[in-house]
Amino acid sequence: MTDNNIILGANQYGKAEVRLVKLTRDTDRHEIEDLNVTSEVRGDFNAAHIDGDNAHVVPTDTQKNTIYSFARDGVGSPEAFLLRLGKHFTDEFAWIDGGRWAAEQYGWNRIVANGAEHDHSFVKSNQEVRTAVVVKDGDKTQVLAGLKGLTVLKSTQSGFEGFPVDKYTTLQETNDRIMSTDVAARWRFNPEAVDADFDFNKSYEDVKALLLEGFTEGFSHALQNTLFEMGKKVLNAHPEIDEIKFSMPNKHHFVVDLSHFGQDNPNEVFFAADRPYGLIEGTVLRENASDAGNVWEGVAGFC
Amino acid sequence: MTDNNIILGANQYGKAEVRLVKLTRDTDRHEIEDLNVTSEVRGDFNAAHIDGDNAHVVPTDTQKNTIYSFARDGVGSPEAFLLRLGKHFTDEFAWIDGGRWAAEQYGWNRIVANGAEHDHSFVKSNQEVRTAVVVKDGDKTQVLAGLKGLTVLKSTQSGFEGFPVDKYTTLQETNDRIMSTDVAARWRFNPEAVDADFDFNKSYEDVKALLLEGFTEGFSHALQNTLFEMGKKVLNAHPEIDEIKFSMPNKHHFVVDLSHFGQDNPNEVFFAADRPYGLIEGTVLRENASDAGNVWEGVAGFC
Amino acid sequence: MTDNNIILGANQYGKAEVRLVKLTRDTDRHEIEDLNVTSEVRGDFNAAHIDGDNAHVVPTDTQKNTIYSFARDGVGSPEAFLLRLGKHFTDEFAWIDGGRWAAEQYGWNRIVANGAEHDHSFVKSNQEVRTAVVVKDGDKTQVLAGLKGLTVLKSTQSGFEGFPVDKYTTLQETNDRIMSTDVAARWRFNPEAVDADFDFNKSYEDVKALLLEGFTEGFSHALQNTLFEMGKKVLNAHPEIDEIKFSMPNKHHFVVDLSHFGQDNPNEVFFAADRPYGLIEGTVLRENASDAGNVWEGVAGFC
Amino acid sequence: MTDNNIILGANQYGKAEVRLVKLTRDTDRHEIEDLNVTSEVRGDFNAAHIDGDNAHVVPTDTQKNTIYSFARDGVGSPEAFLLRLGKHFTDEFAWIDGGRWAAEQYGWNRIVANGAEHDHSFVKSNQEVRTAVVVKDGDKTQVLAGLKGLTVLKSTQSGFEGFPVDKYTTLQETNDRIMSTDVAARWRFNPEAVDADFDFNKSYEDVKALLLEGFTEGFSHALQNTLFEMGKKVLNAHPEIDEIKFSMPNKHHFVVDLSHFGQDNPNEVFFAADRPYGLIEGTVLRENASDAGNVWEGVAGFC
Repeated sequence: MTDNNIILGANQYGKAEVRLVKLTRDTDRHEIEDLNVTSEVRGDFNAAHIDGDNAHVVPTDTQKNTIYSFARDGVGSPEAFLLRLGKHFTDEFAWIDGGRWAAEQYGWNRIVANGAEHDHSFVKSNQEVRTAVVVKDGDKTQVLAGLKGLTVLKSTQSGFEGFPVDKYTTLQETNDRIMSTDVAARWRFNPEAVDADFDFNKSYEDVKALLLEGFTEGFSHALQNTLFEMGKKVLNAHPEIDEIKFSMPNKHHFVVDLSHFGQDNPNEVFFAADRPYGLIEGTVLRENASDAGNVWEGVAGFC
Repeated sequence: MTDNNIILGANQYGKAEVRLVKLTRDTDRHEIEDLNVTSEVRGDFNAAHIDGDNAHVVPTDTQKNTIYSFARDGVGSPEAFLLRLGKHFTDEFAWIDGGRWAAEQYGWNRIVANGAEHDHSFVKSNQEVRTAVVVKDGDKTQVLAGLKGLTVLKSTQSGFEGFPVDKYTTLQETNDRIMSTDVAARWRFNPEAVDADFDFNKSYEDVKALLLEGFTEGFSHALQNTLFEMGKKVLNAHPEIDEIKFSMPNKHHFVVDLSHFGQDNPNEVFFAADRPYGLIEGTVLRENASDAGNVWEGVAGFC
Repeated sequence: MTDNNIILGANQYGKAEVRLVKLTRDTDRHEIEDLNVTSEVRGDFNAAHIDGDNAHVVPTDTQKNTIYSFARDGVGSPEAFLLRLGKHFTDEFAWIDGGRWAAEQYGWNRIVANGAEHDHSFVKSNQEVRTAVVVKDGDKTQVLAGLKGLTVLKSTQSGFEGFPVDKYTTLQETNDRIMSTDVAARWRFNPEAVDADFDFNKSYEDVKALLLEGFTEGFSHALQNTLFEMGKKVLNAHPEIDEIKFSMPNKHHFVVDLSHFGQDNPNEVFFAADRPYGLIEGTVLRENASDAGNVWEGVAGFC
Repeated sequence: MTDNNIILGANQYGKAEVRLVKLTRDTDRHEIEDLNVTSEVRGDFNAAHIDGDNAHVVPTDTQKNTIYSFARDGVGSPEAFLLRLGKHFTDEFAWIDGGRWAAEQYGWNRIVANGAEHDHSFVKSNQEVRTAVVVKDGDKTQVLAGLKGLTVLKSTQSGFEGFPVDKYTTLQETNDRIMSTDVAARWRFNPEAVDADFDFNKSYEDVKALLLEGFTEGFSHALQNTLFEMGKKVLNAHPEIDEIKFSMPNKHHFVVDLSHFGQDNPNEVFFAADRPYGLIEGTVLRENASDAGNVWEGVAGFC
């Protein structure tokens, strides 16, 4: 406490965006893992803030070194790697009782050369960025898997009708439009359902495929409608996942009026707008979902 | 509720990044206000998600129109403008009981031409982006002011010593280094202390000046130490502010080793690194601060 | 001409970044083309610049409209589309004798849902951005195809040895390193070898595959060495291409020293650096290449 | 030469984006210079490309080291610093007969704290980025100064009338609109008029002020018209500058139609659009300007 009863509240610190590329070279057929790792610890850091006493401040440089050292023993999956990091920092330092560890992972495909997948040459996928978060709070541990930047588009089977009209409404109803979004989603595992041996990589690929499949299905009455279907599809197939959050722009594609030029435009020529865009955010979860604790704090928007 | 007891959880939607430029042309000396406004409403949207029934879905296009229409009567300050928007949507639609309205504002200075400030010509400042958030939750209203991208640097009077050492520590102590960060901060007003007549623009300019001044003062033992001093300075001067949160990168500037070239380097030549960077996040608040409700949910990191 | 003999030199103007999405809906199996088109015209625009007389200034808005109107009749390939636009503007307006038309094209794949490629749902590829440029100068027309942002990595079979050493040299030789780059390349067609019927889409896919294959082959003594091999491979297979230019960063991956932590690091754990980076730019061409005219002017760097 | 008469054409290579912060600490009142430097050399590099022989390849790492070592003796101005670097590389290595050296420089202001400018605390300006290029080609040296990202706006005294109308024209004439652009400009010095003692910093500040002033003056009949006036103003005041090139977006601000809501809109409420935008590029030069050599090659667009 200080003068005027001004105190330190919630805080965390660490090293952000540690760019890690891990090769596995056990055989001539190399493997690559490409991550961007952030480590932030929580605990008793009052003295550092208030008195300038750094006795508890495990340097952010040390956190970076630890990430690289741990990677020497393999990554495996971003979630498993973050779980190992979180356990280390909370076990090692008495005054660190929690933290937040996060990663982005970038996909690489083997280059196909002379008719075959190459052993040690790769091309970056860029289709989406995989995300992972581990939050530890005392003896509780939460894991979020996720992705962002997965851009999808339906060229029909989407409309928007039956909405309320007020004095500011000028939008016309439509029963055939382009629907496009950049999927950003994070899903939370039931803490009791996953452990260090859980195959997070297989789970990720399956959830991604379900999200894509869910996007294609049915007639979409609004992006909200599609969001819910996508979430339900994931939860129905994966009992170990308790909830999933989405933040999805409605990327407007406007039909260009070509009548001035003597042309029709039966939903063929579109202007793809940048801003503004719709923003649809929501949570799909089990009625009896486990307690999420503080895991969603500090997550931007809904994702 | 649906099959397998899968339900809709927290959700919100609206129009994001509505780019608004408002001129005031009452006299030959024009004024300009330049904002990027996002409106998201909360309430009962179960039918839209689950049944594809849009009767409650006030179109995001309508939200955009409302923003432009309200701007015709003036902006004033981003906080005041968002308060008006939030009141409108929650008053107007029975099923909307809250929401989140956010804005960025960009500063412009008058161009100095032929020795005088010009009446209708402006140059964008870009020094920082001003931010504002209003969250309504039933009959409670919270206001956050803030800024981001305010890049500062101290060329001395900063060190980092006395930190704990473990097997992963390779960092050396220093008592003279560059300290640089991009200040991102948000401060929360006591709901009872501010109303529609509060001068948010004057308050903003004053808090910004205090943050800059706080950054300069004293010897910094760590960025945490400076963060706390900056926050304390704001709270001491502004009784209407209950708490302030910071998210600040430690932008590393490494002294280049020139000894191989026969040169010394007494902290004069630095490599400014991009990634990784330290990330220092914390809250400074009054011991008896008002309840923050859910206003910090969905704010990325600490800001 | 004006006072002090100050004159207008080279100039061009138009509409940039016209975002065009074109659907083909002739059957239930839709096709999508997604482009970002820029049109700039050249000619006699002295009066507009010097006298404020706009009689020659075909509005940039008109150029935008023309792009959308032409798209109604199909895109085909970015090169063919730009050729049509260029012919239109130079034919239509007596004072327009040339110009530069450019496009980016973004790839989309069909979503695989329930075991099959979907008819009207797509996921954006993002692996690279395809680029195209048409320059008209009087009766001469040049076509550049290209790509950018194709990120590749070889985990071995790359080294850098035998370089000159001076007083500023501290780099150590290596015969095993990661080599990674973002391929940006543009290739120029022999004007006599291509016409409106040339299959630019097929050509593009083939050149991209050759660039990837060329990257994988052999031991790379330097990125310059690989650049030349990639270019040679393209020219050997495509007689209609006269030259190819590359601008490629050497994206450094530094082996992390883990010895302080009691670990070896046999090229397995790397720090992927952002800046600075090497930058390797070069041209591979036929000794008897056709005259390039002014087509490369205004192309940033080498690409 | 290789098989099929495929040869190496124009090429250059080096280290890009070397982030350099230089402090001057001779007194308690520190000075800061903040640059992003790129060095690329040109010469005989055939063996490296074709044969994998690196005997001529001065490492990009060495170029980086040289930049930092030279900075120890001071920067002065980006132009003067690049001239020193260019002279070094062309003097030192027989096979290097030219090159391109470029820099961005970022401005910092002193923080005003407790009523006075602080001695060692700074806030980044961000108003614009200063640019500089030196190109050496044999015994010829060219210098370009410049800036980018200087965003300006006039709220009146701009129109667009008298343009040609064709079947694709839908734009209406206006005699009162917002005109806004991001000024990017580069100006070329007469090689005989500048030497190592020329005060490039003073010249830069003066040219920037003239560009701003030129933007404010008179009624703009089109951005082309304003471009020419801005260029003429610079050349009239600076006999040592032979030409100036501009690349300037016409950042559209559309008047929002509020009539549906019962409101007028006398040019007060605007939608600031992102894409597409007009793009106006042009050169203003002296009739008897010195020969530019190859200095403009590789400069993107017109700037």
